[in-house]
Amino acid sequence: MHPTSMGPRRITALAGGIGGARFLRGLIAAAPEADITVIGNTGDDIWIHGLRVCPDLDTVMYTLGGGISQERGWGREDETFTVKDELAAYGVEPTWFGLGDRDIATHLVRTQMLNAGYPLSAVTEALCTRWETGVRLLPMTDERAETHVVVDHPDGGRRAIHFQEWWVRYQASLTAHAIVLVGADDAKPAPGVVEAIEQADVVILPPSNPVVSIGTILQVPGIRESLSRTPAPVIGVSPIVGGRPVRGMADACLSAIGVDTAAGAVAAHYGARRTLIPAGGAADGILDGWLIDTADAEAASAVRALGIACEVRPLLMTDLEATTAMASAALSLASGLRQQA
Amino acid sequence: MHPTSMGPRRITALAGGIGGARFLRGLIAAAPEADITVIGNTGDDIWIHGLRVCPDLDTVMYTLGGGISQERGWGREDETFTVKDELAAYGVEPTWFGLGDRDIATHLVRTQMLNAGYPLSAVTEALCTRWETGVRLLPMTDERAETHVVVDHPDGGRRAIHFQEWWVRYQASLTAHAIVLVGADDAKPAPGVVEAIEQADVVILPPSNPVVSIGTILQVPGIRESLSRTPAPVIGVSPIVGGRPVRGMADACLSAIGVDTAAGAVAAHYGARRTLIPAGGAADGILDGWLIDTADAEAASAVRALGIACEVRPLLMTDLEATTAMASAALSLASGLRQQA
Repeated sequence: MHPTSMGPRRITALAGGIGGARFLRGLIAAAPEADITVIGNTGDDIWIHGLRVCPDLDTVMYTLGGGISQERGWGREDETFTVKDELAAYGVEPTWFGLGDRDIATHLVRTQMLNAGYPLSAVTEALCTRWETGVRLLPMTDERAETHVVVDHPDGGRRAIHFQEWWVRYQASLTAHAIVLVGADDAKPAPGVVEAIEQADVVILPPSNPVVSIGTILQVPGIRESLSRTPAPVIGVSPIVGGRPVRGMADACLSAIGVDTAAGAVAAHYGARRTLIPAGGAADGILDGWLIDTADAEAASAVRALGIACEVRPLLMTDLEATTAMASAALSLASGLRQQA
Repeated sequence: MHPTSMGPRRITALAGGIGGARFLRGLIAAAPEADITVIGNTGDDIWIHGLRVCPDLDTVMYTLGGGISQERGWGREDETFTVKDELAAYGVEPTWFGLGDRDIATHLVRTQMLNAGYPLSAVTEALCTRWETGVRLLPMTDERAETHVVVDHPDGGRRAIHFQEWWVRYQASLTAHAIVLVGADDAKPAPGVVEAIEQADVVILPPSNPVVSIGTILQVPGIRESLSRTPAPVIGVSPIVGGRPVRGMADACLSAIGVDTAAGAVAAHYGARRTLIPAGGAADGILDGWLIDTADAEAASAVRALGIACEVRPLLMTDLEATTAMASAALSLASGLRQQA
């Protein structure tokens, strides 16, 4: 029987930006009856020109709400950059961040609500009212916790710069010696995050960046623990296909934490949970199942040896149909593990 | 001899928005060698969508910097309203304020600097660096002091609404029972304002709104006193021509304070100073001279009877040439009074 006809009622997914958002479109199509909660990465967030920008939350919101730029994968369709050009004419820095006019309205609403005292989770809910995303989108935390990258700076010296500066301005070309979520210790999961993980029927890790998207979410104290604790199977989808990131510069992030850019290495980095598959695997791992691409089929046995169920499927999100098939495969794997448990 | 060749070295002008800004273009042309300080009205300022908007300061800055919309007289040339439309799509209020995309960059820079602790005067100076206005533009005060209008509200009851709501949203169609500068008591003149008035060779009141532009500036404690005290002649240009405001809705403002919409009535409202023309006039007046339009020539003798020197000139700012002639006439009148003193 097709998984959509008797699929899980409650699905919780962790998500970064473009890769995660595209996968979510397939997940919604694969499980149209399910209540889907998305826990979004906010480590990429940045205050810029006095505005609070949440790139990953917005990419999910715009993608699911039909407002995303199809070409860029981030920001709004039919976007203009008048405000950005005018800010540059005033000589104010930074000029390297792509702040579009349509996008700015989102940041204005968000910033005003934050300054009025609303937590980011409430602001996100308010913004999503317009976009009718079809999911419940939660920030990983309401606290400020921003990813910084330690680099040898072109101006000299080793220093930490904001993730966006490393990613957007330098296109990850500066070697990352460390990637740090500043503020992580004081961050708490946003309201509903832990419950969404622990009360889910299945938890999905989409093919988002394992370091600066999923990895960042896992650094919020309590989230990794709830993934260990949840009775739901936790299924990941490899963002690495044929030894390369499908998109983005995940390799530069993985090398910063000493992990090979390989589907099997990422699975080993996440590690196996003990809950559903008691034999083997790391004690504190978070994966029950892992989908890898057909190009990486030879890694399957090594992943299984870690104590992680592994399936081989085409993992290129070339269109909605292919993406839906990926999501269906992840749900099937979860379903099989639940029956096994 | 033409006034420009031996004109005043230091000119200080009070100014509101469109009328004041246009007059200033003529003043610069009439006195190209002078150091001109402009004291701008900030009673129209409004916080909107979390941004600090200073309509009158910006109208002066854009007009003198060549960025003003020629057609509207406010806001930027080649303006777009993408952000405004998007804010409306989010359903956030207010939607009646014309916040253009280019304009928003100005407000973003201003708001970020204000939130970082810079006073409005420093922010204004920074913004003007780009625009090369040819004048020194000072806000009347660094404190928040906003004009509110007491009206019979369409929703019922008599209440005070922000000046911009009355002016822009209701087009001054609601009868104004009172016009109040909220915060006036705690406002101080911005740094340099009092000095600019007291050390000027001539002080000019351009044809700005006598109530909500010039009148507002005069309400900042200390400014009216410095106008009384300055050794410089104070010359005003009537914004009322032929019994009607040249532009804007000054009549609605004048009736709120019980002053007729007439060139002579406005002069009487401002009143004569005692300094240069000791005979007659109100003790606390601020005018030494007053320019009225040829259409109002019959009011000249009544103005003179108040103790205010009065000249009759064409006062329609149809083009830069006509405006320059008006400014020259004001400077000539001042020059004559100085020699007389």
